[in-house]
Amino acid sequence: MDNALRVHYRLTLAAGENGADKARGIALEQTAELPARCIPEPLLERHVGQVVDLRQTGEHTWNASIAYAAELCGGELTQLLNMLFGNISMKAGILITGIDWPETLLDHFGGPGHGIAGLRALLQLSPDQPLSCTALKPMGSDASTLAEITRAFAAGGVDIIKDDHGLANQPSARFRDRMLACQRAVEQMNAQQAGRSLYFPNVTAGPGELLERMAMARNAGCRGVLLSPWLCGLDSMRLARDEFGLAVLAHPAMTGSYFGTDHGLQPEVLLGDLFRVAGADAVIYPNTGGRFGFSLATCEAINHALRRPLGRLCGAMPAPGGGMDMARAAHWIDQYGVDTMVLIGGSLYQQDDLRGATRRLLATLGR
Amino acid sequence: MDNALRVHYRLTLAAGENGADKARGIALEQTAELPARCIPEPLLERHVGQVVDLRQTGEHTWNASIAYAAELCGGELTQLLNMLFGNISMKAGILITGIDWPETLLDHFGGPGHGIAGLRALLQLSPDQPLSCTALKPMGSDASTLAEITRAFAAGGVDIIKDDHGLANQPSARFRDRMLACQRAVEQMNAQQAGRSLYFPNVTAGPGELLERMAMARNAGCRGVLLSPWLCGLDSMRLARDEFGLAVLAHPAMTGSYFGTDHGLQPEVLLGDLFRVAGADAVIYPNTGGRFGFSLATCEAINHALRRPLGRLCGAMPAPGGGMDMARAAHWIDQYGVDTMVLIGGSLYQQDDLRGATRRLLATLGR
Repeated sequence: MDNALRVHYRLTLAAGENGADKARGIALEQTAELPARCIPEPLLERHVGQVVDLRQTGEHTWNASIAYAAELCGGELTQLLNMLFGNISMKAGILITGIDWPETLLDHFGGPGHGIAGLRALLQLSPDQPLSCTALKPMGSDASTLAEITRAFAAGGVDIIKDDHGLANQPSARFRDRMLACQRAVEQMNAQQAGRSLYFPNVTAGPGELLERMAMARNAGCRGVLLSPWLCGLDSMRLARDEFGLAVLAHPAMTGSYFGTDHGLQPEVLLGDLFRVAGADAVIYPNTGGRFGFSLATCEAINHALRRPLGRLCGAMPAPGGGMDMARAAHWIDQYGVDTMVLIGGSLYQQDDLRGATRRLLATLGR
Repeated sequence: MDNALRVHYRLTLAAGENGADKARGIALEQTAELPARCIPEPLLERHVGQVVDLRQTGEHTWNASIAYAAELCGGELTQLLNMLFGNISMKAGILITGIDWPETLLDHFGGPGHGIAGLRALLQLSPDQPLSCTALKPMGSDASTLAEITRAFAAGGVDIIKDDHGLANQPSARFRDRMLACQRAVEQMNAQQAGRSLYFPNVTAGPGELLERMAMARNAGCRGVLLSPWLCGLDSMRLARDEFGLAVLAHPAMTGSYFGTDHGLQPEVLLGDLFRVAGADAVIYPNTGGRFGFSLATCEAINHALRRPLGRLCGAMPAPGGGMDMARAAHWIDQYGVDTMVLIGGSLYQQDDLRGATRRLLATLGR
């Protein structure tokens, strides 16, 4: 099939299942949603997934590859997701391990607007400098407190200061007040010390408010935003890129349930391929050894998926975080390479002097 | 805590974990995202979840309840989801089994705009009549073919004819063409035989297109739409209700991965409470015994969550589907009660005469 999306699955069979039927069942379930005998002949080839590879790998496990005509997505990320895993999310023993993308689809969805090189350009950093990021918290702090924290982080020289992804529009710090106060704080501190820190507010919200907040952020001078695509829709990142020219830092909230060992989408497919294709310039994920359970191999696989050659798409920047100790930041840059943004939050807050702690962090990164 | 959302969890401990720490960890992770010692005293009580109940239920299992001040949601469904399961989706052994909702939050989110009684009113059905629904498919059919299928279903007298949730904006049947053709078909057939069938187009799309498609559907005379909230955001249903007055039939695409036995959200919480609170008038779920794996108890629990008294919210209509045999439709109404909409697709398509098959289905329902 020309111009097809090839999706690779690892199938785990339950009693009574067989690999060929299970693969064919997926191809039908994710497209026609009818038994083959009910599908008009002319549609069977072009509008139903085609099992193009199938091999047994263990007593109960098979690898299968299914080709879907690119047009079945209708050019939309919502339908792409649906075709990938909509109905089969409710079945068992189906793990998406990889996707081969047709160039037409990559060009259509577009990927990162800034990418690794673009983020470096925004921050005036050279290719041999790793990136640093931190988060404004805790929830409940008022806008002026958050602005003060922003000032301290900017004084310390951190690259990107993002809202914690739980900061939405709570009465304690309404989006507009907080965003304006923090953006002003970072601009003032940058002016004072010739700094280049950027503030990325969290614009995650419903469809109407999302656009409003992106517009407010851009008008206030923000160069990027934080978004949780699984809360407001994978397609929201494209808007930040195309409508507002904003860089996008994507947060993995709500995605963890797809990362089963024999069912779901492997983290490098969801947080790597899908987030990048949909427009993330940088992707936060829970680093190994922190508060969450990713293995080192999974983290490396996400990094690879974000940076590997993929049609004409820019590479996206991995942002490992989730309980990383600042003392280990340089280690992680050594491990993952310089095209990495370390996200350090709590480890800075646990020290008395935020500005001093941030400076020490930057120093460990050779900055 | 006054005016709090109480969330009930079943915790499964891994080696080295203990119940109290795991519960307290959730309360911090989902709010402040900092260790307690880094949180200013005045915020600790109001802006961090409070563990209000904790009991051991087995060697490795605990039940915990955590109260979150309603204001932590900031009045937004995106942040509600994030607080419920954003970060902990990436942990293990945490299952949300129930939510106690404060009335203020229920009033704020609003729930179904039509609800069970409203759907009956739209369809001019009395309270002792069960509802029927079917789907237009397969993907790849052109708009005029889908309109012909619509005509046959309407001629057979089915209540709601929905787009298959994979029909998006593919070149084979663009949204606008398909929606106009099918809406015209249903109106013509209704006029011809004094019918009352309704057509619900699938408006699932990214934030911009979503609003556009809802507007087109309303302007064409549609009274409701199909939406997959996990593809375009839970908050999208509110727009259909508030901006366009459209009834919402919600589809569970992409939600299945949350339904683990010891991690996730129980189906009655996600497809029941959350979909209803967010504005679904009817909720499709995979009926037991069909192509998917829900137990009868799970289906009953979803039905209960959709219909039970919940503040001032209307009840929502369960729509069991996913491979139901039309011969069993009456059985399912007996089992689930008359406030049920049976969704029968493939079982009709497998018969030669769609109109005849639909009539037989309606006859089994005493219609």
